[in-house]
Amino acid sequence: MIKELIRKIEEKKAPICVGLDPVDKFIPEFIKEEAFEKYGYNNKAMSEAILRFNKEIVDKCYDLIPSVKVQVAMYEAYGVDGMKAYEETTRYCKEKGLVVIGDVKRGDIGSTSTAYAIGHLGENVFNGSDGSHREYGFYSDIITVNPYLGSDGVIPFVEACNKYDKGIFVLVKTSNPSSNEFQNLICKEDNNPLYVYVANKVVEWGEMSKDGDCRYNNVGAVVGATYPKEMQELRALMKNTYFLVPGYGAQGGSAKDLRYCFNDDGLGAIINSSRGIIAAYTQDKYKGYKDEEFADASREAVIDMIKDIGMR
Amino acid sequence: MIKELIRKIEEKKAPICVGLDPVDKFIPEFIKEEAFEKYGYNNKAMSEAILRFNKEIVDKCYDLIPSVKVQVAMYEAYGVDGMKAYEETTRYCKEKGLVVIGDVKRGDIGSTSTAYAIGHLGENVFNGSDGSHREYGFYSDIITVNPYLGSDGVIPFVEACNKYDKGIFVLVKTSNPSSNEFQNLICKEDNNPLYVYVANKVVEWGEMSKDGDCRYNNVGAVVGATYPKEMQELRALMKNTYFLVPGYGAQGGSAKDLRYCFNDDGLGAIINSSRGIIAAYTQDKYKGYKDEEFADASREAVIDMIKDIGMR
Repeated sequence: MIKELIRKIEEKKAPICVGLDPVDKFIPEFIKEEAFEKYGYNNKAMSEAILRFNKEIVDKCYDLIPSVKVQVAMYEAYGVDGMKAYEETTRYCKEKGLVVIGDVKRGDIGSTSTAYAIGHLGENVFNGSDGSHREYGFYSDIITVNPYLGSDGVIPFVEACNKYDKGIFVLVKTSNPSSNEFQNLICKEDNNPLYVYVANKVVEWGEMSKDGDCRYNNVGAVVGATYPKEMQELRALMKNTYFLVPGYGAQGGSAKDLRYCFNDDGLGAIINSSRGIIAAYTQDKYKGYKDEEFADASREAVIDMIKDIGMR
Repeated sequence: MIKELIRKIEEKKAPICVGLDPVDKFIPEFIKEEAFEKYGYNNKAMSEAILRFNKEIVDKCYDLIPSVKVQVAMYEAYGVDGMKAYEETTRYCKEKGLVVIGDVKRGDIGSTSTAYAIGHLGENVFNGSDGSHREYGFYSDIITVNPYLGSDGVIPFVEACNKYDKGIFVLVKTSNPSSNEFQNLICKEDNNPLYVYVANKVVEWGEMSKDGDCRYNNVGAVVGATYPKEMQELRALMKNTYFLVPGYGAQGGSAKDLRYCFNDDGLGAIINSSRGIIAAYTQDKYKGYKDEEFADASREAVIDMIKDIGMR
């Protein structure tokens, strides 16, 4: 899958993904009002509003971008209806030819991680009397994974990468303010912070999931744009690991902070922006756009982001 | 919420929860066959089979137990249909008066954890012209939370505990074989393993969510039965923290291993058993039960587990 992601990044000349994290306040009032009128004031209405909002943004931007990152929490908040909007969003993005990163941050003991891997990366097989039937759970190509439980909680996802040609990004150094609390604790064994131990494991897991002759493997790392020093250290340590980089824009990471996340080949990282793109119409910079033109504002924000980051 | 859990544990004289983790092979063939016949070979059929399986077990066992733990991964594997079965399972268990622990192991940056907290512990509020409307996402009273991102990823869940009278169990020392990889790394600052740092934070977060005059607070810890030494250390360190203890039975933890997880007041821990109860009918010990009597076997296994563990 990493080969496919790289192919699309090179084709679009854009090492970016758009984060479809539709929190309530980002969705224009007119979309919500129409949905409430049609479905009532409930989860179903919000989920339909989210889906419409996402589809309009995708329709206006898909030709410019290789990938989207879909934050499942924003859908899960609305229960089963929300998960239906998540499923339809992931399916719609795939139909548009985008690599779909499901930002689910799952991770559990082995047998449980296997179930998550089937739902998000694999497929269910039902052996009926008339042959076997298959059905997907959700439609992601790559998902994010939490490493706290160690190898036996991560390897089921790696196995799914191999079986279904998929990818994962494992949390290494996250972009949030308190990521230092545990991730930066210095461990005695060799004087490195926890995130370096996790990084070394990610490299090891990556060796289990090579993608043909590609330099990069299917096991990537999440490394926040908000910590340039750690980014530099991790880039040196994980030469063949692709980075998913959150934290650009609204969270404070600048294009300058991103200079360390790419390798000499110009590859090695995909930069996410969520509210910077999907809520562009609410920003001063794009105030020329009316609420009804929110997706046009998103398109301009994507073009600006590509210019800002550039292809190395 | 912890007060409510303790009240039910004392009422039933059973510090246990039944893990509704319905993996395919635990569900009797006749239930699956009937569902496939009715719905076809698909996610919908499996989800209906899971729901029927759960309900029959709950019907036979709810008078004996205070709580269930529902592992969302086993439902998420079947996509939106599976999540519908998860929602209906959590709702059904609440109707039966059980405390519902959603084993979701969520955790993300602050704004994202807030969305998860609304979906699993809180409610959505829609302010319509005719007043405000509310709708739940899922129906859990307590959920499990992953701490890797640090305080700002956990505190939104703590705030939801306070706002909605709910609880969380934060992963501290998990029951799986490779939990040592990161959780047991010795950190330099004061020579303690990572799980002790996490434990200290859990105590701190717990101070933010007291439940009236109750000794215990709403922020508990997941501590595996498979690591008695760590259990003993954590019990001494976290005197007012409730433990959710996985790993009893099938994963290798014995009643003897559990002696450290309770406090002198006889409280402080709730022990989970999943396949030991829900798949009891597949075990030699309960072979007197036919497949159709799987829920009766579960009831006997619950009685045996309560005898084995006892109320302190």
